[in-house]
Amino acid sequence: MYEILKTVESPKDIKRLTVNELRLLAEDIREGLFNRLTKIGGHFGPNFGIVEITIALHYVFNSPEDKFVFDVSHQCYPHKMLTGRKKEFIIDEFLGTISGYTDPAESDHDIFKIGHTSTSVALANGLVKARDILGGKENIIAVIGDGSLSGGEALEALNVAGSELNSNLIIIANDNEQSISETHGGLYKSLKELRDTKGTAQNNIFKSFGLDYIYEENGNDIASLISLFKRVKDIKHPIVLHIKTQKGKGYKLAEENKEAWHWTPPFDKETGEKKSGSQKEDYTAVAKDIIMKKAKSDPDFLVITPNMPMSFGLGIKEREILGKQFVDVGIAEEQAIALASGAAKRGAKPLVLTNMTFMQRSYDQISHDLCLNSNPAVILLNACSPNSVRDATHSGIFGIPMLSNIPNLLLLCPTSKNELSDMLLSAIDYKESPVAILMPSNAVDYRESSFSFDKIGSFVTEQKGEKVALIGIGDFFERAALLSKLIEKTFGFKPTVINPRYASHIDGELLTKTAKTHKMILTFESGATDGGFGQKIASHLGGLDVIVKNYGLGKKFYDRYSLEQVFKEEKSDFDSIINFIKNNI
Amino acid sequence: MYEILKTVESPKDIKRLTVNELRLLAEDIREGLFNRLTKIGGHFGPNFGIVEITIALHYVFNSPEDKFVFDVSHQCYPHKMLTGRKKEFIIDEFLGTISGYTDPAESDHDIFKIGHTSTSVALANGLVKARDILGGKENIIAVIGDGSLSGGEALEALNVAGSELNSNLIIIANDNEQSISETHGGLYKSLKELRDTKGTAQNNIFKSFGLDYIYEENGNDIASLISLFKRVKDIKHPIVLHIKTQKGKGYKLAEENKEAWHWTPPFDKETGEKKSGSQKEDYTAVAKDIIMKKAKSDPDFLVITPNMPMSFGLGIKEREILGKQFVDVGIAEEQAIALASGAAKRGAKPLVLTNMTFMQRSYDQISHDLCLNSNPAVILLNACSPNSVRDATHSGIFGIPMLSNIPNLLLLCPTSKNELSDMLLSAIDYKESPVAILMPSNAVDYRESSFSFDKIGSFVTEQKGEKVALIGIGDFFERAALLSKLIEKTFGFKPTVINPRYASHIDGELLTKTAKTHKMILTFESGATDGGFGQKIASHLGGLDVIVKNYGLGKKFYDRYSLEQVFKEEKSDFDSIINFIKNNI
Repeated sequence: MYEILKTVESPKDIKRLTVNELRLLAEDIREGLFNRLTKIGGHFGPNFGIVEITIALHYVFNSPEDKFVFDVSHQCYPHKMLTGRKKEFIIDEFLGTISGYTDPAESDHDIFKIGHTSTSVALANGLVKARDILGGKENIIAVIGDGSLSGGEALEALNVAGSELNSNLIIIANDNEQSISETHGGLYKSLKELRDTKGTAQNNIFKSFGLDYIYEENGNDIASLISLFKRVKDIKHPIVLHIKTQKGKGYKLAEENKEAWHWTPPFDKETGEKKSGSQKEDYTAVAKDIIMKKAKSDPDFLVITPNMPMSFGLGIKEREILGKQFVDVGIAEEQAIALASGAAKRGAKPLVLTNMTFMQRSYDQISHDLCLNSNPAVILLNACSPNSVRDATHSGIFGIPMLSNIPNLLLLCPTSKNELSDMLLSAIDYKESPVAILMPSNAVDYRESSFSFDKIGSFVTEQKGEKVALIGIGDFFERAALLSKLIEKTFGFKPTVINPRYASHIDGELLTKTAKTHKMILTFESGATDGGFGQKIASHLGGLDVIVKNYGLGKKFYDRYSLEQVFKEEKSDFDSIINFIKNNI
Repeated sequence: MYEILKTVESPKDIKRLTVNELRLLAEDIREGLFNRLTKIGGHFGPNFGIVEITIALHYVFNSPEDKFVFDVSHQCYPHKMLTGRKKEFIIDEFLGTISGYTDPAESDHDIFKIGHTSTSVALANGLVKARDILGGKENIIAVIGDGSLSGGEALEALNVAGSELNSNLIIIANDNEQSISETHGGLYKSLKELRDTKGTAQNNIFKSFGLDYIYEENGNDIASLISLFKRVKDIKHPIVLHIKTQKGKGYKLAEENKEAWHWTPPFDKETGEKKSGSQKEDYTAVAKDIIMKKAKSDPDFLVITPNMPMSFGLGIKEREILGKQFVDVGIAEEQAIALASGAAKRGAKPLVLTNMTFMQRSYDQISHDLCLNSNPAVILLNACSPNSVRDATHSGIFGIPMLSNIPNLLLLCPTSKNELSDMLLSAIDYKESPVAILMPSNAVDYRESSFSFDKIGSFVTEQKGEKVALIGIGDFFERAALLSKLIEKTFGFKPTVINPRYASHIDGELLTKTAKTHKMILTFESGATDGGFGQKIASHLGGLDVIVKNYGLGKKFYDRYSLEQVFKEEKSDFDSIINFIKNNI
């Protein structure tokens, strides 16, 4: 096992191999992928599909002088195996030690640390422009696929590459006929026509952006790819290589069900059975249930997603049931929000679904297209908390700073099943302004609690106490509640515990009253504190004689962290907080 | 004068007119445009070019049932004149009473309040989707032109319109061969081929997005346009009408120099001479001078702009001098930042130039493409302060909340000519991290001051005083300095005045020391306080016995305001502040 792969320490070692040996290397790489993915999960389809392209790239070009920029970079596993990081795939004890995305801190062969889509050509254009003014000669290669072409940043970049650069740039459009879910958008019809005509169809989208173009239908054949890459190496102008590949190549189940195998948790290779975690209800399931019921009872309700239906469990079956009340705009976050604003203006009740991290693509659309117009659309965001995704490339911890400072937007943070349900249903029917809701990521809290828009911005005192008031928002309401018990045990008094519910507003009256009756107010937010929720409270109370301390995460790109370790670094672990109270009470 | 226009109170009145009368109406509208533009300035070229399209639209369709969505909406003047707002063009006393952009608060004929580019098709897609699920029958028409097609949001939207909508949508691509400056991007080469072949060229960009298409070359001929619009009225699928028009049509100077006449200050109609304001040096001229000198002395320096060179006075001559050290990516803010990140990674020294408001399009690119990678690019932003642009659609007051909470980014606010120069030159050569600089908009301050990166995040005490410390950032440093004099006069003591220089950092040591030696700390920031700079200080000092008060603007979309009035509303006028000090000292 891994006989050829074992001989490859760096890309140089590949160049000595015969085509037959390269084919065996492809088999070894797939074995390595299986080893990692069955045990710790990760992106399956994109990596199995790109094995041959990666081998041929490293065979023909000279990384890291020649530069590969992988879009999203979720398809970089074979590249990592060929650039000094094979043990992280084939030796179990090292599986968790590297990221699933490119990272210059890991290797000079990785040019950028990325995880969002549609950036590769845009970043490569910068490498090209700088190379040209600095007098460099290397090849620059952008690899884009899996639906990333529909994102605005990618389309802007193709347009620029097609006219503002007149030097070497090789864009590999890895066409596996699939996005995360199925592809959406007219350009994918064009790609199909190009595949069907072996690249000769009229209305070539790449040529309409001014780019040169070659079609290659044997995208999983190493010999064909080597020949193609040799043909364009050192080319003096930008060119698109439209290469047809098979997503999930080498594993029948994945070839047949591309959406289910885009990303996978650990699984059994023989049966394909996925080892999912706990069977307990989570907040995502709660939200999905509400969405499906609302759609059935209200024909004006419209679900919109930028290719992330699965983040809320909306599989093929659910999408069919939703029918015309569902629109997947493809990877196109700007369009998702603008579409919601337009639909709300016209009287529908739109709900946008995606993960917080991807909404960073829509800051201006949320601010101008939506909130400046105060159109009543709802945005429901998953993975908003440091409890959920822990890759810096997909972190949701900047949600409150990004969204809570935009005028006209109500930003809600449910802390229980009842609150989530009340907030989501009230928001969908609310007509006064747009609403964004940050999904909790901790275990479902079934306590009695309710929510309505009767008094915008009102906080709820969930426990009346003395001396110390704890205000915990989002996932960290639970933290405030836990700390309350510890304070009672340590100091013998019961602190006040407040659930603010709104991250966009402060309850001035309640805060002033609390400040006057308590010695200190501690805030806890499940995200970065800078620009966030607690700082608004500190500012509001800046003139009063009360100690205010904001706990949360720092202004940092935390990557693959232990949350307990982060708390210690930020001095927001319970020991540090108890000490702070002791010293200041 | 205005004989036909006087008979038009609403679009209904147009439908009675003969084609000849419609042509006279076009002349009246141009007279109205001249009256407004010569006296108060505004967008010239876009409005003069679209007169005939607007008349024909209102003749054939029935606004507001049929819905027109204007991209940017800077070309909506003729539309406003035909929908009950002609006196705001032809009667001088009403010139300043309406916005230069569409605004639903002004008229039901205006569907959205917008000012940024590339939104029209994206918003129209939402109107279409909602109309279809609600069972409506109206026509929905998006009007896009002037370079907006290269923006990611527009391209995402064309892609969605080309496959996810199968009902009425009419997209007018108003092709006047020009953006704000010249167009950039391969798609404009395609548009030229389409113009040259009367729409029959291969590689039709619209068709590659899956859209139906008609070319019309007589875009300033009312009869041709009426015939075209009648042909597509009530069409059952999305279609692009590619219409060739002449930007600035009807004024020779504007037809000949499109860039200079895209927008104009008040001018003399006979001579074309523009009535610019003061001849004194402003900060834009200071920055331009630095940029041109740096480019001459440093071949690694690269200027990048998303079609906003003129915001920094980089006219055709300057762009020619910059040569290969200059790249205009067209209207494509995401690409601008990604290109800068890539160029910095490859060793160039990139500087991105635009206005703050447009950087809202690049929140994710600044965070991920640039700052997560910590590539040392510089972003220099104009119109960041409430002193500059006062349209809600172009306001820069959210710059500090948006940028100061992104990790790894140094956010600088110069307050004098010397500081701007030191900051810009140091930032361009700085290698440790990306830097953003918010340009001041007040009168140039020539006081002695200097800046270097020796001590990141250090504030400077510009006046040592007692009792009250004033921290003024950006344009509002001047406000703090003025207030200092008033305090001295009113209370007889000299307050401390601090220039923080960094909006992204706090100088903890200096702040703690100041808190211990002063009774109160007042912060002043030239933007919205929520999520901004002062709140970081309030949070940092929340545990100390000092009064902290954050002054600035509220979390609101201020529109065409008097700044003094805003100060009064926010209780941050000098009277209110003096009172606050009196009551709390």
